[in-house]
Amino acid sequence: MHIKNTWYVAAMSDEICSDKPLGRTICNSPMVFWRNKQGKVAAVEDFCPHRGAAMSLGTIDDGELVCGYHGLRMGEDGKTASMPKQRTDRFPCVKRAAVEERDGFIWYWAGDADSADLSLLPEFGWHTQNGWAYGGGVFEIKCDYRLMIDNLMDLTHENYVHSSSIGQKEIDEAPVRTRMNGDQVVTERYMTDIKAPPFWRMAMESQGLDPDAIVDRWQICRFNAPSHIMIDVGVALAGQGGFDAPPEVRAGSVVVDFLTPQTDGSMWYFWGMARNFKVDDAELTDRIREGQHNIFSEDLEVLEAQQRNLELYPDRQLLKLDIDAGGVAARRMIDKLIKAETEAG
Amino acid sequence: MHIKNTWYVAAMSDEICSDKPLGRTICNSPMVFWRNKQGKVAAVEDFCPHRGAAMSLGTIDDGELVCGYHGLRMGEDGKTASMPKQRTDRFPCVKRAAVEERDGFIWYWAGDADSADLSLLPEFGWHTQNGWAYGGGVFEIKCDYRLMIDNLMDLTHENYVHSSSIGQKEIDEAPVRTRMNGDQVVTERYMTDIKAPPFWRMAMESQGLDPDAIVDRWQICRFNAPSHIMIDVGVALAGQGGFDAPPEVRAGSVVVDFLTPQTDGSMWYFWGMARNFKVDDAELTDRIREGQHNIFSEDLEVLEAQQRNLELYPDRQLLKLDIDAGGVAARRMIDKLIKAETEAG
Amino acid sequence: MHIKNTWYVAAMSDEICSDKPLGRTICNSPMVFWRNKQGKVAAVEDFCPHRGAAMSLGTIDDGELVCGYHGLRMGEDGKTASMPKQRTDRFPCVKRAAVEERDGFIWYWAGDADSADLSLLPEFGWHTQNGWAYGGGVFEIKCDYRLMIDNLMDLTHENYVHSSSIGQKEIDEAPVRTRMNGDQVVTERYMTDIKAPPFWRMAMESQGLDPDAIVDRWQICRFNAPSHIMIDVGVALAGQGGFDAPPEVRAGSVVVDFLTPQTDGSMWYFWGMARNFKVDDAELTDRIREGQHNIFSEDLEVLEAQQRNLELYPDRQLLKLDIDAGGVAARRMIDKLIKAETEAG
Repeated sequence: MHIKNTWYVAAMSDEICSDKPLGRTICNSPMVFWRNKQGKVAAVEDFCPHRGAAMSLGTIDDGELVCGYHGLRMGEDGKTASMPKQRTDRFPCVKRAAVEERDGFIWYWAGDADSADLSLLPEFGWHTQNGWAYGGGVFEIKCDYRLMIDNLMDLTHENYVHSSSIGQKEIDEAPVRTRMNGDQVVTERYMTDIKAPPFWRMAMESQGLDPDAIVDRWQICRFNAPSHIMIDVGVALAGQGGFDAPPEVRAGSVVVDFLTPQTDGSMWYFWGMARNFKVDDAELTDRIREGQHNIFSEDLEVLEAQQRNLELYPDRQLLKLDIDAGGVAARRMIDKLIKAETEAG
Repeated sequence: MHIKNTWYVAAMSDEICSDKPLGRTICNSPMVFWRNKQGKVAAVEDFCPHRGAAMSLGTIDDGELVCGYHGLRMGEDGKTASMPKQRTDRFPCVKRAAVEERDGFIWYWAGDADSADLSLLPEFGWHTQNGWAYGGGVFEIKCDYRLMIDNLMDLTHENYVHSSSIGQKEIDEAPVRTRMNGDQVVTERYMTDIKAPPFWRMAMESQGLDPDAIVDRWQICRFNAPSHIMIDVGVALAGQGGFDAPPEVRAGSVVVDFLTPQTDGSMWYFWGMARNFKVDDAELTDRIREGQHNIFSEDLEVLEAQQRNLELYPDRQLLKLDIDAGGVAARRMIDKLIKAETEAG
Repeated sequence: MHIKNTWYVAAMSDEICSDKPLGRTICNSPMVFWRNKQGKVAAVEDFCPHRGAAMSLGTIDDGELVCGYHGLRMGEDGKTASMPKQRTDRFPCVKRAAVEERDGFIWYWAGDADSADLSLLPEFGWHTQNGWAYGGGVFEIKCDYRLMIDNLMDLTHENYVHSSSIGQKEIDEAPVRTRMNGDQVVTERYMTDIKAPPFWRMAMESQGLDPDAIVDRWQICRFNAPSHIMIDVGVALAGQGGFDAPPEVRAGSVVVDFLTPQTDGSMWYFWGMARNFKVDDAELTDRIREGQHNIFSEDLEVLEAQQRNLELYPDRQLLKLDIDAGGVAARRMIDKLIKAETEAG
């Protein structure tokens, strides 16, 4: 069961081109996404009301979604717009979904389309504004999306899963603190007077800082329901204020994570990094994307094996340590929202 | 559930060579086919009565099927013929099937072998006679064979699935007519005064006709239970009688489709094309086979996705439009025959 | 259901190196194996008590098994030894297994570790002693391990599955005899005054014997519960005593087979060959291992197809012929031991 009356990321904008629909299962429902004549994205069930063909195998003609089997044309409202030589006004409708494109992502309202509330759409626009550079991608992972929430709200694992890039022993040594910030779960950890790990040495160098310098490092994970996690990460020359240090002695960025349930046991993981230094260096953007791709690939194997273990032993209780407090708080919020929706009918 | 007391195509003749058995599941039963010393094809369950080994992994010795595990020799009657150092007269029998080779195909009676009725074996021999050339192949498809019946009894889909070869907009515009011809379901469509699509331009050219000429085009689909569909297709110079035009102004052929259930959700698709022009041009036969292979490959993806959709939403009612009337009539006939068999015991 | 209070082979010694754990499912339980600082092998459930991660994806540090997710360190007793910044004394334990390394194999007690009885560990050490050479490998096979017992206790199949290497028609002709030798099931067959098949011709040649000579051949299969099968095989110049012939007129070896259930429908097959001639010829060891690898690969396909057939028809009774008597006796012993364990609680 998933939160319904909320916005999930369904796709990156550039995954939906103008001449081909995109089929994607979200919260157990196979959906098809396409751009209409004005370039606006629409989404309906990926099920042709005629004979059940997958509309996502069809085509786009003049901004209309056309079934690839018999030419039924689907409206953005889930009603058949037309079909060659047929009266279609009594055709059954398929579910339509409210979708909204913003800042490079396609957002998807998982509940009834009529109840979609644009005011609830989160603002992450900074990463497309002047002064920022962004690169990212998407993974399909065979695990419950909540295992990824646990993963991202507890960066202790960097030390083990990502030991050669961003891990370092001081992560284990620095205490982690979890707190609520309104409806946001925040988990933060600060390391002072340390050497930077390889990834941050690269970032320092790219800003003209001495990679061997002693630094302060931060990790600030911010979770918002249903499953958006923004993580401030970075280093600054020691004693200059850390996260609040002036730009010229600091190398920081924001790890952007949008998690979307595909089925109960699988998910879409939209990941990326936004940085506010060297924003015009496209080669650096590519290099960071590639590095981040490699780092997150390491998580995949761990999470999919964890999922198999939990399916094999569904009744085992997991531990809830201080380092797990962020994930625990996030799950508690998800459970509360699902319960509220269930009670509301 | 499938019609039992009927003939299905099990294989193309050249799939069963003299020195190797062929394992193939039909109507949910794994069977093994082989040629005896006289070259006659036999079929029994693919299950060695000794220890359950797959006989299809065995060998043929002097026309006898030999289990590859311990050398049991199986008779064509499903009784063990012999086994080294063993008395086999009390070995349990396995099911034998009545099979008949005719015109390049192995026909398989799905019911009790003793009830096999050769008089019910359909006659499709014309395509191996003088004056005809034939080429074809077989696909394994993960869909209910009835989805393929729908597909073939409604060629409207040519326009969408096969837009670059045989599709053209006039297909949608021409009315389709479905009628019964005795026990045969016929669905036909005639297009007059049109330009030929790419596949038929090629056929016209290969007969010395001007590919740019205005033509009349026909599609006549003939379904016979349980699942044989012959389709007359072609073009003739406009106004010369269409399907009945004289050979010199006409390019026509018969699409041969034998559908055989493998399991409830999968099938064997034997497809081919018989033509009565340029019958000695082996290179043309190859070219048409390759083209048809490519065209039918496009159907596979559509049908397998449709199957997945229908399994996900088993209770959804599909539409039954005029273009679906052929498939609907064919399914009605199948249901009637299954009901009759069930009632007969 | 499997015999629990018994030793299975879990791995070959060289599968467990000093710097990486090995994950392996045995009797339906995913386990992780590693070497401690002294090089001694330990095994616990492959399930981190913290969040269920697979410990086998972790690392070895100074002989300690470290979870690759958050750095939990697992003790050999199934208790968490430590975890960065955590008190771990109240962490739940995972199951530990008793393991013992001997003669190139890791032995695994499938029952409660505290009840492990080293006196029950079978002695197969001769193959690592002076005067013997050994080569082998491991296969993962998708079949009930008992199908492999049947296979190995009835070498009649050599004639069919392995016709080009060790099969010969005299195998079928020689009577097989099955008898109990204490708790051991013995199936034996003797062929006299025959020509050697290709594999044994090679062995004779490598010992300076004439490969065309008339020989006596033997196959003596010895099964011990739960699933260890040693097979004496070889040839000797005819009339010199066969199995008991003096070394200089004899080419013999022992086929070593340790079968370990992975799940109810899959298994690990540890196979090898020990010989007491030309023991210093490493190239010969490699050649025999490669030949044996190829021979046993032929069995895989047969057994996996048999498994599928038996799953499709679970109620069919299989035949129990004289050639099956070894497998039947072995299964009877297994059933008796499982029954005794069940009754003992």
